[in-house]
Amino acid sequence: MIALHTVRDEAPLIHCMTNSVVPEITANVLLAIGAAPAMIDLPEEAEIFAGVASGMLINVGNISSEQMEAMRRAAPAACSAGTPWVLDPVAVGALPARTALARELLDHRPTIIRGNASEIMGLAGVSAGGRGVDSTDQAEAAIEAAQQLREQCGAVVAISGATDIIVGSTITRLTGGHELMTKVIGTGCSLGATCAAFAAVAEDALEAAVSAHALFSAAGTKAAQLTQSPGSYLPTFLDALYTMGDDEVSSLVQIKES
Amino acid sequence: MIALHTVRDEAPLIHCMTNSVVPEITANVLLAIGAAPAMIDLPEEAEIFAGVASGMLINVGNISSEQMEAMRRAAPAACSAGTPWVLDPVAVGALPARTALARELLDHRPTIIRGNASEIMGLAGVSAGGRGVDSTDQAEAAIEAAQQLREQCGAVVAISGATDIIVGSTITRLTGGHELMTKVIGTGCSLGATCAAFAAVAEDALEAAVSAHALFSAAGTKAAQLTQSPGSYLPTFLDALYTMGDDEVSSLVQIKES
Amino acid sequence: MIALHTVRDEAPLIHCMTNSVVPEITANVLLAIGAAPAMIDLPEEAEIFAGVASGMLINVGNISSEQMEAMRRAAPAACSAGTPWVLDPVAVGALPARTALARELLDHRPTIIRGNASEIMGLAGVSAGGRGVDSTDQAEAAIEAAQQLREQCGAVVAISGATDIIVGSTITRLTGGHELMTKVIGTGCSLGATCAAFAAVAEDALEAAVSAHALFSAAGTKAAQLTQSPGSYLPTFLDALYTMGDDEVSSLVQIKES
Repeated sequence: MIALHTVRDEAPLIHCMTNSVVPEITANVLLAIGAAPAMIDLPEEAEIFAGVASGMLINVGNISSEQMEAMRRAAPAACSAGTPWVLDPVAVGALPARTALARELLDHRPTIIRGNASEIMGLAGVSAGGRGVDSTDQAEAAIEAAQQLREQCGAVVAISGATDIIVGSTITRLTGGHELMTKVIGTGCSLGATCAAFAAVAEDALEAAVSAHALFSAAGTKAAQLTQSPGSYLPTFLDALYTMGDDEVSSLVQIKES
Repeated sequence: MIALHTVRDEAPLIHCMTNSVVPEITANVLLAIGAAPAMIDLPEEAEIFAGVASGMLINVGNISSEQMEAMRRAAPAACSAGTPWVLDPVAVGALPARTALARELLDHRPTIIRGNASEIMGLAGVSAGGRGVDSTDQAEAAIEAAQQLREQCGAVVAISGATDIIVGSTITRLTGGHELMTKVIGTGCSLGATCAAFAAVAEDALEAAVSAHALFSAAGTKAAQLTQSPGSYLPTFLDALYTMGDDEVSSLVQIKES
Repeated sequence: MIALHTVRDEAPLIHCMTNSVVPEITANVLLAIGAAPAMIDLPEEAEIFAGVASGMLINVGNISSEQMEAMRRAAPAACSAGTPWVLDPVAVGALPARTALARELLDHRPTIIRGNASEIMGLAGVSAGGRGVDSTDQAEAAIEAAQQLREQCGAVVAISGATDIIVGSTITRLTGGHELMTKVIGTGCSLGATCAAFAAVAEDALEAAVSAHALFSAAGTKAAQLTQSPGSYLPTFLDALYTMGDDEVSSLVQIKES
């Protein structure tokens, strides 16, 4: 895994194009892990910034037409400039406009794709997708879809669930986190941004995705040791991200590679 | 009143179209009460989703032109599909574009209308409306406007204030809550979303509106017993929504039907 | 400095047009200091409201095309109506569309301009600007740019940094705050809104800017005495804004006028 101080030392600038619900938590998560967030959705500016940023996130949850245009311009710009970028296919498979957009963006070779099982299956076209952001399929059932996406665009594919499954040259399973994470909006979306931050400082996309998921699982577990309700869970989780060390991450998450 | 476990057991999927300030708190409130939020504002997707969701919220506070189009397409779709929906007429009466939109949406038979006194009067056209989201009229003065709206579109009309007044086949007054609720942005807006969640699991719109307001009042009172400042009040309020039981709601709110 | 009770007594209505990341924290900060926030970005409504509000904020961070149009209509309306307004040139100098917009808005005589050093220099055209919202130049180096802007449009110019520098008829340096403020998104943006709230109740723009910065520095220092992590820092900071008195502000901030 990538040492946490690598992100904190390099403070990568992460260009986020994300849905209207989660910009604040996404920015606060990036700040807590030591990265620098920049939300830029104006098409003209997004295209420029995609080439300047250290990493980029495209999250297709609740987006406007103008954001869709920005994504269509920023993805090829990131690809050309070699900016690593993450695609988060929120509710893809269930809703048509974002499904078409997300599939189109695969041509611009996302570094990491992160979603829940139904979104990964929906993106690959092997399922009708879930209802909104809930995962109605189990992560294991989405591995084949993940491998198909990996063949199509070269991305490492992370399937979030009670056990996260990261599909790259190998398959890694991470167990940790806590159900309260699903009771705070934006934990999944900000995990996508965290993947972009790790990808910005990593040589290897698989290592970046595993490191980001391990950090989130560990912080999620730690926060749940301190509070049992979602309102106080969010600040506690951000505090955990900010204060956590590598040893603590390792002790709180089980990682198996196969 | 509707038992809280009904929402928690059924986990209704609530389609929210709301203003740019409150999506995060709205989603977190819905998660805390056991519902599943989905913010969808793209016109094409909103029209589809209005027919799929268990309940829907249209909040006309600070919205974009594109959101206005989405609302114009989603409201008739919800009406046709029988999806219960809530109209929150933020600052209606005071600002022209949203006033025209909100009045137009009445044709599509909202299940519940929730606003403060000046907004209800502004929507009914009997007052010039307040300044922004503050209520400058008292709730009692808005009962006639509420009854007029009820006759026009069939909705239950909830007038928020120090005492909330719910106008349906009967008039119900709820006393509870705390002034600190007005010091945290989005408590009113997320009450609208909570009405939609209760309407999604209820047979009766009046019962849904009363239950939602009772839960909010009780959680507001409980949170104010634990903290006296608005920054810590928000997480405390969300925790109260998450942990509260029916008996606690009943003990913290006074409800009078007439 | 302006007594805190002046804002709390008058509860000025502050019209905010701001970026997609920070509306919630901005509204909560305004509520905590006793002002009344109203976010209005629809061009037609923004133009009207600019003449009705007690103060206005234009923040050009991550904005949509429609918001840009709203700003172009609201700024002259505020200028004509005598509504004091604040320009926050987020990432100006680094990104072209917002740089052009912010410079164009100077014609409508902002009361206060608030940004970090690279943004102030970028707005004045004497630097290529920083990377996103981070300040890569030191505040002292931006004083000349601030004076140039002041000559051009008459504004008081506030340069945020470890020491804040306010350039008006005199130059005021404020030392206080805490580095954790940079680990929570929107503290700078909501300082802009706070400047607008003080400008709404002040005779003098310099006094308003100094008062707003002093309050923020003091609340930032106080919050850091109570917590050392960013997740819990935000609610603690809002609580500090809400409970702070004038004596406490004076004791926690060093102010030097030259």
